Amino acid sequence: MLWGGRFEQEFDAFSLEFSSSLGDDINLLHQELQCGAAYAEMLHSIGILTKDELQAILGGLEKIAEEWNNKTWSPDAKVFEDVHSAIESRLYELLGKTAGKLRSGRSRNDQVVTSLRLWVKKASADLQMLLHNVQKTFLAKAEPHINTIIPGYTHTQLAQPVSLAHHLLAYVEMFQRDIKRLDDVIKEADAMPLGAGALAGSTLPIDSNLLKEKLGFASIMQNSLDAVSDRDFVLDFLNACSIGMMHLSRISEELILWSTTEWGFAKIGDAFTTGSSLMPQKKNPDIAELIRGKANRVFANYQAVASLMKGLLLSYNRDMQEDKPPVFHSYNVYSSSLHLMSEMFKTVEFNNALVLERMKQTPMLATDAADWLVQQGVPFREAHDIIGELVKYSTWNNIAFKDLTLDDLKKVSPAFTESVLPVLQFDKCLEQKKTLGSPNPSFVRARIAYWKNLLK
Amino acid sequence: MLWGGRFEQEFDAFSLEFSSSLGDDINLLHQELQCGAAYAEMLHSIGILTKDELQAILGGLEKIAEEWNNKTWSPDAKVFEDVHSAIESRLYELLGKTAGKLRSGRSRNDQVVTSLRLWVKKASADLQMLLHNVQKTFLAKAEPHINTIIPGYTHTQLAQPVSLAHHLLAYVEMFQRDIKRLDDVIKEADAMPLGAGALAGSTLPIDSNLLKEKLGFASIMQNSLDAVSDRDFVLDFLNACSIGMMHLSRISEELILWSTTEWGFAKIGDAFTTGSSLMPQKKNPDIAELIRGKANRVFANYQAVASLMKGLLLSYNRDMQEDKPPVFHSYNVYSSSLHLMSEMFKTVEFNNALVLERMKQTPMLATDAADWLVQQGVPFREAHDIIGELVKYSTWNNIAFKDLTLDDLKKVSPAFTESVLPVLQFDKCLEQKKTLGSPNPSFVRARIAYWKNLLK
Amino acid sequence: MLWGGRFEQEFDAFSLEFSSSLGDDINLLHQELQCGAAYAEMLHSIGILTKDELQAILGGLEKIAEEWNNKTWSPDAKVFEDVHSAIESRLYELLGKTAGKLRSGRSRNDQVVTSLRLWVKKASADLQMLLHNVQKTFLAKAEPHINTIIPGYTHTQLAQPVSLAHHLLAYVEMFQRDIKRLDDVIKEADAMPLGAGALAGSTLPIDSNLLKEKLGFASIMQNSLDAVSDRDFVLDFLNACSIGMMHLSRISEELILWSTTEWGFAKIGDAFTTGSSLMPQKKNPDIAELIRGKANRVFANYQAVASLMKGLLLSYNRDMQEDKPPVFHSYNVYSSSLHLMSEMFKTVEFNNALVLERMKQTPMLATDAADWLVQQGVPFREAHDIIGELVKYSTWNNIAFKDLTLDDLKKVSPAFTESVLPVLQFDKCLEQKKTLGSPNPSFVRARIAYWKNLLK
Amino acid sequence: MLWGGRFEQEFDAFSLEFSSSLGDDINLLHQELQCGAAYAEMLHSIGILTKDELQAILGGLEKIAEEWNNKTWSPDAKVFEDVHSAIESRLYELLGKTAGKLRSGRSRNDQVVTSLRLWVKKASADLQMLLHNVQKTFLAKAEPHINTIIPGYTHTQLAQPVSLAHHLLAYVEMFQRDIKRLDDVIKEADAMPLGAGALAGSTLPIDSNLLKEKLGFASIMQNSLDAVSDRDFVLDFLNACSIGMMHLSRISEELILWSTTEWGFAKIGDAFTTGSSLMPQKKNPDIAELIRGKANRVFANYQAVASLMKGLLLSYNRDMQEDKPPVFHSYNVYSSSLHLMSEMFKTVEFNNALVLERMKQTPMLATDAADWLVQQGVPFREAHDIIGELVKYSTWNNIAFKDLTLDDLKKVSPAFTESVLPVLQFDKCLEQKKTLGSPNPSFVRARIAYWKNLLK
Repeated sequence: MLWGGRFEQEFDAFSLEFSSSLGDDINLLHQELQCGAAYAEMLHSIGILTKDELQAILGGLEKIAEEWNNKTWSPDAKVFEDVHSAIESRLYELLGKTAGKLRSGRSRNDQVVTSLRLWVKKASADLQMLLHNVQKTFLAKAEPHINTIIPGYTHTQLAQPVSLAHHLLAYVEMFQRDIKRLDDVIKEADAMPLGAGALAGSTLPIDSNLLKEKLGFASIMQNSLDAVSDRDFVLDFLNACSIGMMHLSRISEELILWSTTEWGFAKIGDAFTTGSSLMPQKKNPDIAELIRGKANRVFANYQAVASLMKGLLLSYNRDMQEDKPPVFHSYNVYSSSLHLMSEMFKTVEFNNALVLERMKQTPMLATDAADWLVQQGVPFREAHDIIGELVKYSTWNNIAFKDLTLDDLKKVSPAFTESVLPVLQFDKCLEQKKTLGSPNPSFVRARIAYWKNLLK
Repeated sequence: MLWGGRFEQEFDAFSLEFSSSLGDDINLLHQELQCGAAYAEMLHSIGILTKDELQAILGGLEKIAEEWNNKTWSPDAKVFEDVHSAIESRLYELLGKTAGKLRSGRSRNDQVVTSLRLWVKKASADLQMLLHNVQKTFLAKAEPHINTIIPGYTHTQLAQPVSLAHHLLAYVEMFQRDIKRLDDVIKEADAMPLGAGALAGSTLPIDSNLLKEKLGFASIMQNSLDAVSDRDFVLDFLNACSIGMMHLSRISEELILWSTTEWGFAKIGDAFTTGSSLMPQKKNPDIAELIRGKANRVFANYQAVASLMKGLLLSYNRDMQEDKPPVFHSYNVYSSSLHLMSEMFKTVEFNNALVLERMKQTPMLATDAADWLVQQGVPFREAHDIIGELVKYSTWNNIAFKDLTLDDLKKVSPAFTESVLPVLQFDKCLEQKKTLGSPNPSFVRARIAYWKNLLK
Repeated sequence: MLWGGRFEQEFDAFSLEFSSSLGDDINLLHQELQCGAAYAEMLHSIGILTKDELQAILGGLEKIAEEWNNKTWSPDAKVFEDVHSAIESRLYELLGKTAGKLRSGRSRNDQVVTSLRLWVKKASADLQMLLHNVQKTFLAKAEPHINTIIPGYTHTQLAQPVSLAHHLLAYVEMFQRDIKRLDDVIKEADAMPLGAGALAGSTLPIDSNLLKEKLGFASIMQNSLDAVSDRDFVLDFLNACSIGMMHLSRISEELILWSTTEWGFAKIGDAFTTGSSLMPQKKNPDIAELIRGKANRVFANYQAVASLMKGLLLSYNRDMQEDKPPVFHSYNVYSSSLHLMSEMFKTVEFNNALVLERMKQTPMLATDAADWLVQQGVPFREAHDIIGELVKYSTWNNIAFKDLTLDDLKKVSPAFTESVLPVLQFDKCLEQKKTLGSPNPSFVRARIAYWKNLLK
Repeated sequence: MLWGGRFEQEFDAFSLEFSSSLGDDINLLHQELQCGAAYAEMLHSIGILTKDELQAILGGLEKIAEEWNNKTWSPDAKVFEDVHSAIESRLYELLGKTAGKLRSGRSRNDQVVTSLRLWVKKASADLQMLLHNVQKTFLAKAEPHINTIIPGYTHTQLAQPVSLAHHLLAYVEMFQRDIKRLDDVIKEADAMPLGAGALAGSTLPIDSNLLKEKLGFASIMQNSLDAVSDRDFVLDFLNACSIGMMHLSRISEELILWSTTEWGFAKIGDAFTTGSSLMPQKKNPDIAELIRGKANRVFANYQAVASLMKGLLLSYNRDMQEDKPPVFHSYNVYSSSLHLMSEMFKTVEFNNALVLERMKQTPMLATDAADWLVQQGVPFREAHDIIGELVKYSTWNNIAFKDLTLDDLKKVSPAFTESVLPVLQFDKCLEQKKTLGSPNPSFVRARIAYWKNLLK
C-alpha cells in the first residue's frame, strides 16, 4: 500500500477487492514501466537519483517486464490496489530503499493518465492498421465487380441498380473516415500530463521537457488541475470506437440478410459460420451477428464515461477509475471485429445471377425513365407522376418494365418515344449514370485506382 | 462442438475465441447441471433413458459439479463455445454414448434461457437479503437520532430542519421499494422456457409439467418462439439493479459531501477510506466514490441490452449472447455495493454539534414563521412576501433569525405577535410538524417501530 | 413569480426561458387543477379556507380548465417558470388575495410529483388499453392461420416450420407481459407525496388521509424527504415504455423484411406506406421503420433519467425538472406506435404460397428426422451427426429433403426405415409436435381460445 | 405529397402526423432554400432550366424566405411530411409547373443530408463563438486572482493549495479543446453529398463541382451510397456537444458546492438564482443545476443516434429521420448553457478569506514537507511515512501543521531542520512550485498572457 502512514485501521479486505483496479490497469503495465524508466532518467538529471540508483532502477524495471513476460510474476488483486502499487512493491523487493525514490514528485493521479494516454495512442495506431487491412479486403473483393449489377436499397426495398464494387467501396469510404477520426484521437491524446503530480505540480524541479522527449509526447499539458482531471481523450476514443463498430454492424446486418435463403446473394465461408446443437442442417452467420451484437456495449461504454465525468468536481476522483474498463473493452471488441471482418469477408462468395434475375422483374429503372422525360423537357414533378402511372400500368398488366413496348408507354403518356426503350434495359444502366460518385463503371474504376494507390 | 456434421471446413480459431461465451456463462454452471438432472429424469419418465442411463447421467453431472468445486476441471474458452458444450463434452468423456442422449429435444436456445432465469431468480433473492441488511444498518444508525436536528436540503442549499433519523429512514423506504421491485423481477423470471427446443418445440413427448415441478418454476411459457426470444426479464432485472445503484449513488454522494472539511458532519471509518500515494495527509472516501462511479456502467448495461434486442427478428439470434455480461456485471457491482454500504455505514460517525451551530445562524425556520402567519389568517402568498422581507431585514442587520426580537419583527409586519417567537427557535422545531411523514419525532418513532417489526 | 421576496435583482430573462418547464409540465394541467381542488377542500376542512373561499377557489379552478379547453387562456413560457406559477397567477387575477391561500403548506416540490404520479397512473392505463387493441388485432390476424405453415427462424436463417398463427401469438404473449409490467408501474406510482411540502412536511395540520381519498391514491408516502426526492416510478415507467417499444421494434423489423421483394411474404396497406420523391416505383414501409427508429430515443430517455438522479443528494434539486420531457416523449412515441401498429397490421396481407414453396426446397425438417432416430434408440448426439451427413448428401446430390428416398437415406445410415418418410413431408409437420407451447394446431387453437376469452 | 403516383389509397392521417418531420426539419429551412438556389443555377448551367425559369425559381425561393421571416407562411405538420414537401408545395403555388423542375435529379435523401451538413457547420461555428465568450469571462475572472490561494481537491477532499486563477484556467483549457473538437466536426461535415440522388446518382449531367463552389463545401463525396447513408458527422457533432456539456456540468457542480453555506466560497448573482414557492429564505443555484441536469439528455442523444444507425443496411432508411431531433436539441441545450454560463459567471463573487482560514487548520502542505525531505536525500517512500506520522502527531496534539515547532518535528523524525519551517506556511506555498503547469504565479501569469493574446 502506498499510503498507510496516517491511518489507524487497516483497509477492509472486501473493500480492497472491490476497489482494486489491477485486473484492468494491468493492461497499462508496459506503459507504466516505460514511464518509470523515463522518470528515473529525469530524476537523475535533476540530481535526485545517483548514477548507480538510476542503473538499479532501470534494471529493476526491465526485470519486472521480463518476469511478467515469463509469467514468473503476476500480482494479485486481493493484495494490490492497482498496477502502480504492484510495480512499486516488486521494485522494492528487488532494490530496497532506492525503489522508494522513484515516486518523488509523482502521484498515481498523473501516472495513470500518462500511461493511459500512451496506451490510447498505441491502440489507435493499431486500429488504423486493422482498418487498412479491412479496406484492402473490401477493395480486393470490389475490383472484379465493377460491372456486377446488384440492387441498391432504400427503406430495405429495391431502389436503383448499383454495382457490387460500388456498394463495397461505400464501406472503404467509411473505414477511411474511421482512420481519420483516430488521427484526431491520437492528436488529442498526445499531450503529456506527467509532472502535474496529484493536482498541483511539485516543489521538486521536475524537468517536463525531458520527460516529454523521452516519452514521445507532442506537447505538455499547461494546467496541472486539468492534466489530472481531463478524460476528453477517452471519450474521443470511445466515440471513434462507437462509430467504427456502427459501420461494422451495418455491413454485418447486410451480410446476415444477403446470406438468407430469401436473399440468396452471399455465402460466408464455413470457417466463419456455426451450426446448431439441435438442428443438423443449420449454417449460421454467428460472427456477423456477434459483431452486430457487441456494438451495443461499445456505445454503452461511451455513455458510461460521459455520465461518470459529468458529476465530478476537479480534480481527480476515485470514480474515474471506471474510465478504464470501457476503454479496454471497446478496444478489444473493435480490434477483434476488424480482424474478423477482414478474414471473414475474404471467404464471402457472391451469387449475382439470381439477384439480377429478380431485379429484372421490377421497375427499378423508373427513375432513369423519369430522367429521360426531364431531358425531353417534362418538369420532374410531372415526369414522376407519369412514371407512377406507368408503374401501375405494368403491375395491372403484369408486364415487367423492361418488357414494356412503345405502345404500352404511349398509353400512359404521349411524351414517350422510341429512344426511351434502351433506358428500360438493365445492361447499360450503370453506364448511363453521369454524376460523380455514381456507380458508373468509369467512376468506380477511377476510385478503385485511387484506393489502390493510397493503400499500397 | 455440438454441430459439426454438415460443415466441410473447421471453425476459425480466432472466431471461436471471439464468439465463445464460456467466460461469462460459466456463471450458469450450477443451473445448467440442475437443468440437466431434471431433464434426465424427465427423459427417463418418457422412456428415452433407461434407469441405468439415468443413474449414469445423474452421477456424471454430480461428478462434474464436484470436479468444478475441487478445481480439477476447468474448461477452456479456446476449446469450447459455451458452458453447454463444455458440460456435454465432459459428460461424454465420463460416460461415452449415453451422454449424447441428454440433448434429445433440447437446444442451447431453450437451455441457456432456462438457466439464466433460474440464475436471475436466485440473484434477485440474494440482493433482497443484502437490501435487508442495509436496511438494518440504516435503521440501527437512525434509532438514536430521532431528536438529532440536521439540515434538510433542496438545491444543495440549507432548506428546513429535519432529524438525522428522518433522513436515514428516507433510504430505508427506497431500499424497501428496491426489494419490492425484485419481487416483480422474480415473478417475471419465474416462467419456464424449457421444452421450446430451438424455437418450435419437439416431436418428442417432452413432459413440461414434470420439468416445471423439478425446477421449481411457477409456470410454463405458452409459446415456443416467445420462450427462446424473450429477454424482458433481463431488462427488468437490469432496471432493478439500475434503480438500486442510483439509490446507493445518492447516499454515497451525501457521504462524500458530509465527510468534507467544509461540511464537517460525518467521518467514515479508516477501513473504508484510503490515502494518497503522494499526499501523506489524505483520507479519501474511495468506497463511496466507487459505488457512485460504478453505477454508470450498470445504467449502460440496461441501455446495451435494450438496443441489442430491438433490432432482432424472432427467435434466437447470436447477438443475444451479449445479454449475459451485463447481467453478471450488474449483479456483481450491485451486490458488492450493497454489502460495502452496509459495512461502511456501520463505521460512520456523525458530528451534529457543528452542523446545528451552523443552522442556527440561518433563517431555516422561515417557512414555519410563514405557516404561523397563515394560522393568523394571512394568505400564504402574503405570508411568503412578509417573511421574504424579514430575511432581508435579518441579513442587512446581521441578526440571526432566532435572535430577532418582537420589535424587529413588527418593523416588517404588524401581524407578528409574541407567540411567533418560539417558532423561531430550533429546539422545538421538529415537534411542531403536523403532517404524516414529517420529521416529527413521534412519527419517526412510529416508523422505526414499523421497520423493526418488518425487519426482525 | 412565486418567490420574489428576498431578492434584490430580477431574474434574467434568458434564464427564465432556459429554466421554464412550462412547455413540458403544461401536460400536467389537468392533474394540477384536480390536486388544487382536493387541496382546497382539505384546507376548508381544517379551517384555513372558509366555505366561501373554498367555493371561490373551486370555481376559479374550473374556470381555468374551461379557458384552457376553449383556448382563451394559454400561459407563456417567457413569463412563467412552470404550470404551478401559471395557474396561481391566473387564479390570483380571477380571485385576488383568496387565491394566495391555496398554497398554504404546499410546495412545488410535492405538487409536481403528485401531479406526475397521477399522470403516470393515467398514462399507464391508457397504454394498457392500446395494448389490448393490438392484442386483438394480432389475434384476429392469427386465427385463420393455425394451419398456415411459415418458417421459424434462428440467426435470421430458416430453422423449423411453425404456423403464422403461432408466430403472431408470440407477440400477444409479449403484449400481455407489457400490460402486466404497467400494472406494476401503476402500483409503484400509487403512493401520495402531497403533504410533504418542500421536503419536511408542515406545521399546519394538513389532513393527508382526506387528500388521499379525494385524489384516489392507494397509500400515503411515509417519509417527506423521500416523497419529494423519489423518481423511481419514473424509471419504472420508462422501463415499461422501453421494453414495449423494443417489442414493437422487433415486429417492425419483421414487417420490413417480410415486405421485401426477396421475402415476398407480406404487403402492408397503402395507407401505411409511402413513396419516394425521386423514384416513382417505390412503396416503403415508413411507419414500421419509424417505430423501429423511434425506439432508440425511448431507451435513451431511461438512460437520461437514471444518470440524472444518481448524482443528487436529497431532496429536491432543479436537475429533476429534466425528468418530465423523457416521460412525455416516451408516452407519445409509445402510445402512437401502439395505435399505428394496430391499424397498420390490420392492412397486412400475407402470401404464404411462395414462402411454403421455398421451405420445401430446404432441409428444415432435419430436426424432426433426428428426433425420429432418437425414438428408434439412437442417442441424439449420433442422430445429429447422421442428419448432418444427410444434409451434405442432399446438397451434393441436389435432392430436396422431402424427395429423399429410402435408398438415399440408407446410404447415409442403416438406422432409417420406411416410417421416417412421412416425417420429411411438410403437410403433417405441425401436428407431429408434442410439446406444450409448440405450433401444434391443437395447442395453438387452445391458446387462441384462451386469449379470446381474456380479451373479450 | 411528392410521391402519390403509384398509390391507390391515401396515406393515413395519423400516420402522416406520426411520420412528419416538419416540426424538426423546419430548422433547416434556410439551408434548404440556399441549396435550392444553388441547384437551380446548376440546372440552368446544364440546360434544364431556361434563364427565365431560373429567375422565377430564385425569386420564388426568396419570397418563401421572406414569408417565413414575416410569419405570413408557416407550413403545417398535419399537411406536409417534411420541409422539402412544404417548400416545393409553396413554390408550386407561386410558380406553377416550373417549380416541378427543381427536383430533377435530386432526392430528399441527398437534399436533407446536404442541408444538415450546412446546418452543422454553421452551428459548430456558432458554438465556437460562444466558447470564446466563456473563455473571456473565465479569463477576466481569473486575472485578479493569481495570488488568491484556494484549496485544490482530490476525492472532494482538501488536497493541496492552488490559486483561484489556476483553477479557472483549467476550464479555459477545456474550452479550448472543445473549440478544437468543433474544428474537427466542421471538417467532417464539410463534404458535399448533393448529386447522390436517392442513392445512385443520376443520369442527368449534374455538375457537382459547381454545386460545391456555390454551397461552400470543401469536397464532394465520392460514393453515392455512402453520401446518403453517412451520419458520422452527426455523431461527431453529438460527441462534441456531450464533452462540452460535461465540462459545463463540472463547473456547475463546483458552483453549486461553492455556493453552499458549508463551503461559503462563492455567491451567484440574484439574476441567475431563484427562490422557493414555500421557503421564503431560499436562494437556489437553479441555472447551474439545470445545466448539470440537461447534460444527461445530450449524452442520451449520442446514444440514441448510435443505436439508431447500427441496425441499418445501406442506404437511406426512414429511421434516419430520428437523427435530427437529437442534433437540434443538443445544440439548443449546449448553446444556451454556454451563453448562460458566461453571463452567470460574470456575477459570481468569491469570498476567499473564509476558505483560506479553513485551509490553514489543515495539513494541506504535507506533500511540500515530504518533497523537502526528498531534497534532503530521504527516499520519497520514507518521506511519505514520516509525514504520515506527522499528520497523526498534529491531530493527536491538536496542533495545526503551520504551528508545528522544530521540536514537534524532531519528535517525529531527526531529518527535520529549521529550513523546513517556511515550507509549512501558506503565504509562500504557490511560489515554491517548480513544475510547468503548476499554480506558481509566474507560470499562471504567463498562461494568462498567452490566452489574452489568443482571445483578443
